Amino acid sequence: MPFVIGVDLGGTKFAVCAMTTDGAGQHAFTSDPTLPERGPDDIVARIGARVLDVMARTEAETGCGPGDFLGVGIGAPGPLRRADGVVVVAPNLGWRDYPLRDRLAERVGLPVVLDNDANCATLGEAWIGAARGARYVVGLTIGTGIGGGLIIDGKLHHGANDVAGEIGHTTIDTAGRRCRCGNYGCLEAYASGPAIADRARLALDNDTPSLMRSAGQDVSALTAEHVFGAARDGDEIAREVVKDTARYLGVGVANLLNLMNPDVVVLVGGVTGAGEQLLAPLQTEVRRRAFRPAFDAVRIVPGALGSRAGVVGAVAMFLAERGHVA
Amino acid sequence: MPFVIGVDLGGTKFAVCAMTTDGAGQHAFTSDPTLPERGPDDIVARIGARVLDVMARTEAETGCGPGDFLGVGIGAPGPLRRADGVVVVAPNLGWRDYPLRDRLAERVGLPVVLDNDANCATLGEAWIGAARGARYVVGLTIGTGIGGGLIIDGKLHHGANDVAGEIGHTTIDTAGRRCRCGNYGCLEAYASGPAIADRARLALDNDTPSLMRSAGQDVSALTAEHVFGAARDGDEIAREVVKDTARYLGVGVANLLNLMNPDVVVLVGGVTGAGEQLLAPLQTEVRRRAFRPAFDAVRIVPGALGSRAGVVGAVAMFLAERGHVA
Repeated sequence: MPFVIGVDLGGTKFAVCAMTTDGAGQHAFTSDPTLPERGPDDIVARIGARVLDVMARTEAETGCGPGDFLGVGIGAPGPLRRADGVVVVAPNLGWRDYPLRDRLAERVGLPVVLDNDANCATLGEAWIGAARGARYVVGLTIGTGIGGGLIIDGKLHHGANDVAGEIGHTTIDTAGRRCRCGNYGCLEAYASGPAIADRARLALDNDTPSLMRSAGQDVSALTAEHVFGAARDGDEIAREVVKDTARYLGVGVANLLNLMNPDVVVLVGGVTGAGEQLLAPLQTEVRRRAFRPAFDAVRIVPGALGSRAGVVGAVAMFLAERGHVA
Repeated sequence: MPFVIGVDLGGTKFAVCAMTTDGAGQHAFTSDPTLPERGPDDIVARIGARVLDVMARTEAETGCGPGDFLGVGIGAPGPLRRADGVVVVAPNLGWRDYPLRDRLAERVGLPVVLDNDANCATLGEAWIGAARGARYVVGLTIGTGIGGGLIIDGKLHHGANDVAGEIGHTTIDTAGRRCRCGNYGCLEAYASGPAIADRARLALDNDTPSLMRSAGQDVSALTAEHVFGAARDGDEIAREVVKDTARYLGVGVANLLNLMNPDVVVLVGGVTGAGEQLLAPLQTEVRRRAFRPAFDAVRIVPGALGSRAGVVGAVAMFLAERGHVA
């Protein structure tokens, strides 16, 4: 069976693996630091080397040959243009108008297809993960930022020029918090990892004792993970911050239900590691806000692929773009 | 050329007309009061009579015969189920689980197809109106309520169970105004006709003189139309209310741009009669909030079909459902 290489490029790490076109076999998964400060060409050189390395290891593991690799699917932060494979702006990487697709193709000597990282993660979960087989899927990637992907009739919806799915940058409070994107009151400004940590720091601006401040921890180094950990350990302030996070995300998800009426909403990314303490109140908020038939029709679930959703989805995206069934 | 009958059922009026399947010819347009207090069967009897009447007039006008009518497309307030043609809840009509499609089919002896009124209006504008030929269209119907329709790859997106497109019931302020739907901070609670009048009344809760209060007008009878008229005549308070309306709608439209990345956003319904005084500041707000590539890709335009968008779209919807090119 032929193979496709998936690449998931993030601000901190990039991951690479090979998969069979039926999604059953995953080979030679690797994860490396991105080191954005070294610039795009250096990053592409290292991704290219990893791709060749993953191919060699897959050949060794399975007995396949170089001719068995159809190409490379890569998910990258957007906005980007799929038509010419250019990353238009990627603040976390410091890139602007970088021809990622062609630069990588030169390195690996295989066809490369580029798409948004959140689109890929959503497609991965729809291909072999928690939203498998669903017709209408909304994916939310909640980590350093909040991204999203829309699957309609089994296919990614890209919109007029590949911007579609930017759920993190929809306003939930017209006069709300300033967002990195320049807008005010974006969902991302409330419920991304850094926004959660930020709200926790604000909540700590008094003398109430809190586990989040204990153990000599520097409050400026507080992360969303610390907040969820402290909440799990019974810290009242942290619990309040988690509850608010669930409420904000619930507003965003309810909006998606009334607008898109999906079969599945799948939540992926670091923040979803918080589990039930986040998911349960989020469900409550969605039930409170969304139209009843839309709520009754949907499953709201954490992703099944964990941190591999992106690479898996990059493979699925390559297959879909090339007209293979994915 | 064969004909299809379109019906647009609203809380105040219903409209009926016949159209040729190429969209070029409209015949025997009529509009009647709905009189919801008479109950659904009475309304359906009157719609049925009108349909037969429109058929007879079309035959007289064009020389066609009864066999030239393919069927009836009807747009009605939702939520509804297309599969069995049932209106689930229609607050403005006082209906619950009413089998509109089959009751009307019995009356007229033709196949009937049912869809949401806002979906129909959007499809009408995409068929022969302001969004003609566009691939990705978002329609907003702004009147007594705020509805919406999504067209993706030229086809209406209905979602898992026909709820999709409820743009009016997406939250733009998490802790905002209570909406008729039970949710808080819905776009409809700020920018529908009654919400505009309501905000104007609140703004008049002081002694500042205003054209909206002059001429012995009862403030409780104030409508959005009065507000727009007063603003046009230079009334400061009315202008402020219109500007706020444009801002709220701008937030909703910007959210749709970042999420759906459409080619065209088409605004239909009574409120859009306000023209440039609403559209210009709305555009400004959208530019301020949406991603630049999404804003650059979209045309935000008033509908071209006026109050006929619904009937025209009901015909297009019938044709699309029956596999005709519409």
